[in-house]
Amino acid sequence: MGMTIAEKIIAGAAGRQEVRAGEIVWADVDRAMMDDILGPRVEIAERMRELNVPVWDPDKVVIIADHYTPPANAKQAAIVKFTQEWAQEYGIRNYYAFVGPCHQVMAEHGHVLPGTVVMGTDSHTCMGGALGAFASGVGSTEMVGILATGRIWLRVPETIRVTWRGTPPPGVMAKDISLATIGDIGHAGATYKAVEYTGEAVAALSMDERFCLSNMAVEMGAKAGLIPTDETTEAFLLGQGLAGPFPRLDSDIDAVFSERRGYDAATLTPMLACPHEVDNVRPVTEANAARIDQAYIGSCTGGRYTDLAAAARLLRGRKVASGCRLLVSPASKSIWERAADDGTLLALSEAGAVILAPTCGVCVGLHSGVLADGQICVSTTNRNFIGRLGSKKAETYLASPLTAAASAVTGRLTDPREFL
Amino acid sequence: MGMTIAEKIIAGAAGRQEVRAGEIVWADVDRAMMDDILGPRVEIAERMRELNVPVWDPDKVVIIADHYTPPANAKQAAIVKFTQEWAQEYGIRNYYAFVGPCHQVMAEHGHVLPGTVVMGTDSHTCMGGALGAFASGVGSTEMVGILATGRIWLRVPETIRVTWRGTPPPGVMAKDISLATIGDIGHAGATYKAVEYTGEAVAALSMDERFCLSNMAVEMGAKAGLIPTDETTEAFLLGQGLAGPFPRLDSDIDAVFSERRGYDAATLTPMLACPHEVDNVRPVTEANAARIDQAYIGSCTGGRYTDLAAAARLLRGRKVASGCRLLVSPASKSIWERAADDGTLLALSEAGAVILAPTCGVCVGLHSGVLADGQICVSTTNRNFIGRLGSKKAETYLASPLTAAASAVTGRLTDPREFL
Repeated sequence: MGMTIAEKIIAGAAGRQEVRAGEIVWADVDRAMMDDILGPRVEIAERMRELNVPVWDPDKVVIIADHYTPPANAKQAAIVKFTQEWAQEYGIRNYYAFVGPCHQVMAEHGHVLPGTVVMGTDSHTCMGGALGAFASGVGSTEMVGILATGRIWLRVPETIRVTWRGTPPPGVMAKDISLATIGDIGHAGATYKAVEYTGEAVAALSMDERFCLSNMAVEMGAKAGLIPTDETTEAFLLGQGLAGPFPRLDSDIDAVFSERRGYDAATLTPMLACPHEVDNVRPVTEANAARIDQAYIGSCTGGRYTDLAAAARLLRGRKVASGCRLLVSPASKSIWERAADDGTLLALSEAGAVILAPTCGVCVGLHSGVLADGQICVSTTNRNFIGRLGSKKAETYLASPLTAAASAVTGRLTDPREFL
Repeated sequence: MGMTIAEKIIAGAAGRQEVRAGEIVWADVDRAMMDDILGPRVEIAERMRELNVPVWDPDKVVIIADHYTPPANAKQAAIVKFTQEWAQEYGIRNYYAFVGPCHQVMAEHGHVLPGTVVMGTDSHTCMGGALGAFASGVGSTEMVGILATGRIWLRVPETIRVTWRGTPPPGVMAKDISLATIGDIGHAGATYKAVEYTGEAVAALSMDERFCLSNMAVEMGAKAGLIPTDETTEAFLLGQGLAGPFPRLDSDIDAVFSERRGYDAATLTPMLACPHEVDNVRPVTEANAARIDQAYIGSCTGGRYTDLAAAARLLRGRKVASGCRLLVSPASKSIWERAADDGTLLALSEAGAVILAPTCGVCVGLHSGVLADGQICVSTTNRNFIGRLGSKKAETYLASPLTAAASAVTGRLTDPREFL
């Protein structure tokens, strides 16, 4: 009997020929990632001191200061400083700061490879599934265990196989596929399961777009959001200067899935996750044409190069509506530089956008574009919970970069196909 | 008997043939500027409501949200929202937000003209003196009076004539001239006086560099920081599409100055204002070679195009030192765009800089790069008071963009001439 992608990776990490969903195994961890907000400063430093052990393998640990960069107050600055000093103390050379959200930085710097196990102290660690890694978020206690031993205790998850056939029409992006899936499965519909995204619509996506799908798998409660690896995956890895070959991973034809769901991308339209739940999803055309105060294009879910380029194409020759603001935070320093080099950032700015540094800031309401009472934001980020982007009396609609750009132009929630 | 520049402008605004230092007059105000931090929300909105009068001339009022942009928390966001709504309520169309520090925005958008009186609720309003305006900061009570009547009660200031002869050597910038002057005159040495910057070294400066001189005049206590207008001034104004001619302003040869000071630019070296006073000035070569944690290039004093270009020239082919961070915030959206268009921002980023949006943020410790306890920053901003950039246990050295860039490369306070 065949295995799913999750079963194959975990079997390998457990030193087994095969594992089955429901089993509990010990797995070797290939990369342990900590960010600043939920990293060493949250119990981890204290417990590691109590244990009085070194990190099991400093070269397999990655620390990324991304939420509090640039620091908005002395307390945030102190956390960044502490995180940096802790990395030095434990000999962790894979330290990154001020270069963008951790998941994107992990993916760009060779820390996420097909067939590996990646654990991080951030819920959207599942983004690594787009590169064929079993990548998942863990709490600080779990991370202490990993740091001390290099292993993690895992229940092998069941898998939901999600197939998107067909070709999405112009104006529809991976974010729309992601939101439509989450709307259908629900915010707890994949709890502790792996979600596999497959089908011709997924296979046709660039890595940038695939990352968007995997990133938001956790919004259905998923442990992992996996995509079969192919030549697109390989090209992305080779482009980093990594040496192949890389394993081609897909579920076996006779693998057992807990569920299969199929959708048609050809009939998909731009979607919104309406306040205040990620699975409160409806087409943009059915949204009340609320005014918006802010459009935000950024984050590990919606600030990649193709996101910025798509927004810039729509915005060239147009202007952000009066009274509305458009903030753009590229998802990494390298994305910022690519978009600076080819004029994408300048085009966005000339349309009225404010270009921020790469950061998690506004996505978690920490800085760099927080909302006031009564304000409405359309955002390419991954959560629209009450208070997530600032005031508890603000409202956030999640949408694709194209929808965010179109809405910035009109000053209200707008289907980007109006501009195509 | 002749008049100083300040006397000439105030005489004109008072409808008089001449005025003399020490007189008290009523002067017409040409532009009243409010920012977000010290604007309508600080008493002004409340008092205007009590007075129940309109603004005397909405087209002469300018409102600029710059300190709390992008907002770092819901409270900051609420202030920006309030400021925007207040501008709408009072019919003030000159509203700018998210486009950079107010003084630079004023100068770029035709709100500061030679011979005019400009009053603003921000101490560095004196920057407008570089364009031959009598520009000065006022408190909120004073601003209410201006808004209601269009006039201000002024004591005509005495003038200190500061002459910089000679040509500064390579590696020496206007910031060094500014710091050297402040170090000599002292932080209260020009209290309620006008400072006139003249001499061949000043005449040779670009407008970008002149703004740096006038901006920091208030750091000597000055009411205004004036520079004679010339073809450089005119070219800057014509470049905005403004229609000339513009008055040529200089003090008369027989004007009465309270004091004259002369300096030689040819012997000047890069300077630092050491913690925690702006007049605690010494050459960079005499500073202890302290490590630095952050270099900051930005603000209305040190983030103009020529500042960024100078830093980029030094940084090309070099890298920011490990453990140090270099943050760059262009002083306005138009400066950001110019520096994006010609590759300056990309060069800075490739050297390791993080490019922030135009904002007052870090200069006042509000967001976008605040310091933690024990951190040391070299900054092109205009104040290094205790706690100004964040923690009260941090230290800030003020310096030129070249000195900040050189220090970022070495990770300690460094004379930029080492890299020339």
